Amino acid sequence: MGDNRPIGVFDSGVGGLTVAGEIIKALPKEKLIYFGDTARVPYGSKSTETVNKFACEIAEFLRGFDVKAIVIACNTVSSNSYNVLSEKFDIPFIEVVSPGVNACLAATKNKKVGVIGTPATIASGAYEKKLKAADGEVEVYSKACPLFVPLVEDCLTEGDITALTVEMYLKELKELGIDSLILGCTHYPIMKESIGRFMGEGVNIVNPASLTARTLKKYLEDKSMTGDLEEDAYPEFYVSDLNREKFGEICRLAMGEVYEAKKISLENI
Amino acid sequence: MGDNRPIGVFDSGVGGLTVAGEIIKALPKEKLIYFGDTARVPYGSKSTETVNKFACEIAEFLRGFDVKAIVIACNTVSSNSYNVLSEKFDIPFIEVVSPGVNACLAATKNKKVGVIGTPATIASGAYEKKLKAADGEVEVYSKACPLFVPLVEDCLTEGDITALTVEMYLKELKELGIDSLILGCTHYPIMKESIGRFMGEGVNIVNPASLTARTLKKYLEDKSMTGDLEEDAYPEFYVSDLNREKFGEICRLAMGEVYEAKKISLENI
Repeated sequence: MGDNRPIGVFDSGVGGLTVAGEIIKALPKEKLIYFGDTARVPYGSKSTETVNKFACEIAEFLRGFDVKAIVIACNTVSSNSYNVLSEKFDIPFIEVVSPGVNACLAATKNKKVGVIGTPATIASGAYEKKLKAADGEVEVYSKACPLFVPLVEDCLTEGDITALTVEMYLKELKELGIDSLILGCTHYPIMKESIGRFMGEGVNIVNPASLTARTLKKYLEDKSMTGDLEEDAYPEFYVSDLNREKFGEICRLAMGEVYEAKKISLENI
Repeated sequence: MGDNRPIGVFDSGVGGLTVAGEIIKALPKEKLIYFGDTARVPYGSKSTETVNKFACEIAEFLRGFDVKAIVIACNTVSSNSYNVLSEKFDIPFIEVVSPGVNACLAATKNKKVGVIGTPATIASGAYEKKLKAADGEVEVYSKACPLFVPLVEDCLTEGDITALTVEMYLKELKELGIDSLILGCTHYPIMKESIGRFMGEGVNIVNPASLTARTLKKYLEDKSMTGDLEEDAYPEFYVSDLNREKFGEICRLAMGEVYEAKKISLENI
């Protein structure tokens, strides 16, 4: 009999739905519990101390479901809070930074790579440190793109404003001749087309969401913790603030499917 | 002797600094205590219930300073929570919607007016209802502009991206022939030039920040509650999350002067 405890997945908001979608595809016999902190999104512009505090509150909430593992589907939290969470909770955490780093190093040929993310993720230097620790020869160019999340949230994934904003942020990385670009924010895969079009065909766009799902799958198999629920065990979605229409729209953009979410307050747990 | 208790001013973040700046100018003998909920900004995309909860927590914090009045320097909170706050607290509240409405009605000649703001402010219909209640003949055209706040926060108050975004949101209002436009979000005065340039000289741009300061002044005078502190009583600024550099930059854009802020947690009061 399998380990049918659920898998927890959380993000600062709805961007992590790109990760949840990949997990549902890769592990259809697992039950997924998603939490998006939509009342306090975005985390990207907040201090490490505040991000740590919020992350611990969410892990506490997910622990209440007796989860067997928690996926940190948020680059800001992965970059800032992985160690704090792992020390505080007796639950395995899977973060999104390492899978992206490994895939990027496997893909690059000229050893010039780019990382884009929120100001907090870029300021943390998490991607850069891990890339350099794994390969001292790699050159890493990082760029914060604070307008990408608001563009996605306004469903502006194409068009002139998006194209100009992509150009403003990525022009320098393109001129530097990078051959791989890590999408270091879970919202960014939703505008992957616009980013890829600007960067050109020679540049690998590395999407940590699918790689994180693969890492989780391997972890559960290695530890004999896989579940064997019926296919399509219905996932549950919780948010700290709910705009039904918007949640549905981002669900569709991020996962190709629309789910319902329930609103809960972290302070009542 | 004057009533030298301080005046509380709060906003979801740093946008309310435009209002604080106008109050400091209009009432130099008053002490101002500002709170910006930067850990949970933006409120514009959150539900009324959540906005009410946050607003009550902040009013509780300001009450701790024995404030004589509280200015709600946030259109989202003014639109959603004024009644809740006034019922719950025995403190006079001054909100930013009514001053903008009155100035707009005084300015319009063709009785076609526009209102722009965050999705929550526009969805609340607060400006529209007050405008129509005061003058049944006025035609009101409203438009949510969710990208304006991120643009200001990224200091993009000018340039192609800003011009295109202004055009995208305001084109319809311009074509409809409005002659007055209320900036229904405290961040928007910071990009007033770009908005005014697109709308053209025939359109009055109504900035509720300065009008709110005037309303507060009149209220204190009417109730004999004015202070007589020495000129330039140094204001105090509190935020729930602090990025010193960004706070300074927005201070400069919004108030023409740079102040220091202290970080506090609302949960510790």
